[in-house]
Order: sequence, then structure tokens, then C-alpha cells
Amino acid sequence: MTIEAASRKLVAEFSARRTLRTGSLITTVFGDAIAPRGGTVWLGSLIEAMRHFGISERLVRTSVFRLSQDGWLQSNQVGRRSYYMLTEEGSIRFARATHKIYGEPEQAWDGTWNLVLLGGIDTESRELVRKELGWLGYGALATGVLAHPLPDMRDVEATLGRLGVADDLVIMTGQTIRNEQGMKVLSRNSWNLEDIDNRYASFVRRFRPLMSARGDSAVNLEPLSAFLVRTLLIQEYRKVLLRDPQLPAELLPANWHGNAAYQLCRNLYRAVCEQAEVYLDATMQTADGPLPPPGRAFFDRFGGLQP
Amino acid sequence: MTIEAASRKLVAEFSARRTLRTGSLITTVFGDAIAPRGGTVWLGSLIEAMRHFGISERLVRTSVFRLSQDGWLQSNQVGRRSYYMLTEEGSIRFARATHKIYGEPEQAWDGTWNLVLLGGIDTESRELVRKELGWLGYGALATGVLAHPLPDMRDVEATLGRLGVADDLVIMTGQTIRNEQGMKVLSRNSWNLEDIDNRYASFVRRFRPLMSARGDSAVNLEPLSAFLVRTLLIQEYRKVLLRDPQLPAELLPANWHGNAAYQLCRNLYRAVCEQAEVYLDATMQTADGPLPPPGRAFFDRFGGLQP
Repeated sequence: MTIEAASRKLVAEFSARRTLRTGSLITTVFGDAIAPRGGTVWLGSLIEAMRHFGISERLVRTSVFRLSQDGWLQSNQVGRRSYYMLTEEGSIRFARATHKIYGEPEQAWDGTWNLVLLGGIDTESRELVRKELGWLGYGALATGVLAHPLPDMRDVEATLGRLGVADDLVIMTGQTIRNEQGMKVLSRNSWNLEDIDNRYASFVRRFRPLMSARGDSAVNLEPLSAFLVRTLLIQEYRKVLLRDPQLPAELLPANWHGNAAYQLCRNLYRAVCEQAEVYLDATMQTADGPLPPPGRAFFDRFGGLQP
Repeated sequence: MTIEAASRKLVAEFSARRTLRTGSLITTVFGDAIAPRGGTVWLGSLIEAMRHFGISERLVRTSVFRLSQDGWLQSNQVGRRSYYMLTEEGSIRFARATHKIYGEPEQAWDGTWNLVLLGGIDTESRELVRKELGWLGYGALATGVLAHPLPDMRDVEATLGRLGVADDLVIMTGQTIRNEQGMKVLSRNSWNLEDIDNRYASFVRRFRPLMSARGDSAVNLEPLSAFLVRTLLIQEYRKVLLRDPQLPAELLPANWHGNAAYQLCRNLYRAVCEQAEVYLDATMQTADGPLPPPGRAFFDRFGGLQP
């Protein structure tokens, strides 16, 4: 199988999936491709790009409408054409996700935990905090205690502020002084790391064939194929990452597939990135013509895009 | 009312109480009076002393039998006489209680909490740990997390070892980094400090009249009265202390009565101590005659017994 055939197979499999969520895929395209290049795109270009994933024009229109209602996108009408761009809120959310997706996953850890005590708030708020801090990677170390070893405190503060519980919750820092091994067991149960590990493993199985095949390599993909592969790559990686609390290595099970997934994602992204940009140059339009070139931050993705 | 009349009133009120537990009172006599003076006493002396609290010979015999079965006391028959002494286990337990009862209650605190995570053990063990660490002053900061600001780690380790969960439980140290005030609120709920404060206040109300009355003072009490007052003083103080997690001042409510209770207990103990010893000299017998004189540690009680 050539690398082109492998990419067609990947896209076909993806399109055939029942659980395909168009809004999520459009979010990926905006975050991965449009955001670093001005952030605005003609709806027609988006419809054309989505067509290759087997997504109908109607579905794209419904999805961007929903994303607008949810505060991610805003539209701008110029003549008969609609242009979509990220809202300010959407940009902030993307910037945060970007940091998580394209940054190095390994972080040094000094053994300190961040502990959020839920005792000070009512049951309803407790549920909300549990859910929202869950998105930030917090797990329940015990009923009534959410924990994370390496939280982004800005995100935590912003979330608590938004939920109106900033003055009620008690936060501690904690260090394990007894039974480190038991702490690893608690961690596994708190986050269901097995499930996340399985998702990383299946991500690796799905995308590894795209890297190289019979002397052929992903760098040789056509611009369109490169764009489709790059988009699906980030889409799938992002989906696992959203569930991953990104625990430090000390707390992960042996043979954790997260690192292999990151490395594959980085290598494949580097391989297809440039050709995918060629596709964007040729296809994506703004009110002022093609997309502007990407900003400098773009080239820092995955520790630097130049191989 | 003279000071003698006040002491008779105290003893009468105590004897009339339905909830009077003879075993507990005998435990106090052993810990407070017998333990520092050799640890052994003739059952007949004990029966005679208990009679003044309105406790029958039969009840004393039943109680020492139960205390023996529970591993606190052991008996030694010499001729027709039974002598009771503390077991080794009983001595250790008394020594620990002694430290708590007669030591200074104020402790400096650096803000560090000890946190015991109950996630690693089954429900049954969890209940046991909750109960046993509860005796060591731990409160539930959240479901599944026991906490204490100033635990005696030797006691904790011994307890966990005895319960067979030493290898399963995770212990952390924690520091509040957000909402110190909220932590105080959590503390109050975790320990029901209001109830303990009320008990301290009623202890103070009960024993304050014993200190002085119309130019009379507790130092003038007869030996027997001094012994009865001293025993009831420690009995009642011990009962509140057992419930008191002994939190540092920073976590206590304003107007906490614990300090007033300690000071009253110390002052009254210092006042009646010597006369009570005279009673012990004259009444308590061992197989070799009167009780030996108290060891040096005795005179260090309450920061030193010489006023």
C-alpha cells in the first residue's frame, strides 16, 4: 500500500464512523489551520474542505451555526459571502488547547499535589466543580477531594471564578509522605488511566501506517491528502488528550502509550505540515484573498516544525 | 460555703449521676495516683477509696475484672489478698494519656496538615481507621480524607500497624494555599468544636468554686477531700480531653474555653495534690506496705507541681 492509499484508507474509515462529530472536526480545522493564519475563513472554503471528509454542506452550515451560538465563532457577512472567525473567548480557549496539544508532554514534577477540598460548597456546586475541574485534569482522590499533580493554576482560578465558588473552596498543596506506591494505585483509579492508555495505543495503531510504507513517506503526500491526514491526526490526538490528566511519569503505569502517541503525532505532523499549508494556500479564502502566512508561534509547534 | 462543703457538693453531684462509669473512674485513679507510685495496689484499698464516691464493693470487683479482661490491669494473689497492677500494654496507654493530660496544651503550628487518604482500603477497614484515628484526634476533612494538624505520628503508625493497614494507606502532608478562613470553617464542621467548647465551659463552671471560697482555699482541704477532688478533676478533664482534637489556636473559634479549663485544672491540681498524696500514703497498700514515693516525672505534671 502506498502512503497515498494509506491516507485514503484513513479518511474513508473516519468518514464511515457513526460517531463523527462535524462540530468537533471544524473546531480542529479552526484551531490547527485557520487560527495561526489570521483566524478568518470563507464558509465556502470550509464547506469544500469538509466535503473531502464526506461531510455535507448542510451539516457544515448547521455546525458553524451551533459553534457561533456556543460562543466559539462569529460570522461576518461581506456581500453574499459569510466569513467565520474565532470569537475572543474562542481564541483564548484555542490558545489554551494549543499549549496542551502542541507542547512537550513531559513535565518535571517535584511530588507536590494540588488538592481542592469540596467541603465548603453545596452539593450542586460540588458537581459543577467536579465536572469543570475534570476538564482541567483533576481526579477525585477521595470523595470530596479533587487532586492534580501539575495543574495550570490560572485555568483553575478562572474556572472557580466563573463558577462563583472562588471564595468558598479551600485549596491545599500536599506531599505524599507514606506509601508512594499506594498513591500510584489511587491515581490509576482516580483517572481510569487504563482507558486513556488504550486510546493512546489505538491512536498509534491507526496513524503509524501513515508514517512510511514501502520506501514511501508521508512527506510525499499530495497537498489535499496532507491536509486531511494532518487534520485527522490532530483531531484524534486532541480527543485523547482532552481525557488525559497529563500526570507526571512517576504516576503513570509502565508501558504508558502517551509518549509513543506524542512522538508519532509530532513526527507525522512535521512530515505533512508543509504540504498541508500548500493546500490551505490554494483553497482557503478570506475577504482579502488567501490566508495570511502563519505567525511565528506556529513554527514552534511540537518543539519546532523544521525537522 | 466553705471549701470542704464545696468538695462534698462536688462528690455528691458526681455520685448522683446516672452515667457514672466505675471502670472509667478506676482507670483515672490508676493513671493519676497509682501509676506514678509503683503501679500496684491492694484491691481492699481501692474498694475503700471508691466507697467515698458512693461506689459499692461489688461494682469495684466487677470493674477491675473487666479492666483485667480488656488488658489494662493484671492481678496478683498474695495469701487471701488480691493486688492489681497495670499490664505493660496498660502502662503504655497510660503513659500516652499522661502526656496528653498533664502536658502543656498549646503547641506551635507551622500550618502543615497530616492527611490520611482512605481510598486504598476496603469499606470495613475504612470504618475502623476512621474510628481509631478519631481517638487520636483526626477529623474527616472530606469523605475519604482524615486530617489532623498536629498528629502524634508514633501513635498513628502504631494504630495503622495494629489494624493491619500500614501498607495500604496513603498519608500526605498538606498546606492551605487558598482560603485559610474556609479551612477554619471546615475544621469546625469536621470536629464539632462547639460541643467540645461547651464541655470545657461546663468543666470550668463545675470546678471553679473549688479553687477558693470566703478566704478559704483548696490547699486547706482534708487529705480525703483532696484525693476525691483531684480524682474527679482529672476524671472530668480527661473525659473532655479525649474528645478534643487539640487543634492549634489558629484553627479554634474565638473565646475557646480549652485554655481556661487547662489553667483551672492545673491550678486546682497543684493546690490539692500534696494533701491527696497524704491520703494515698495513709490508705493505699501494696504487698510490701504503703505505696512507694512518686517518681520524678510525677512532679513535672502541669509544668511542675511546686507552685
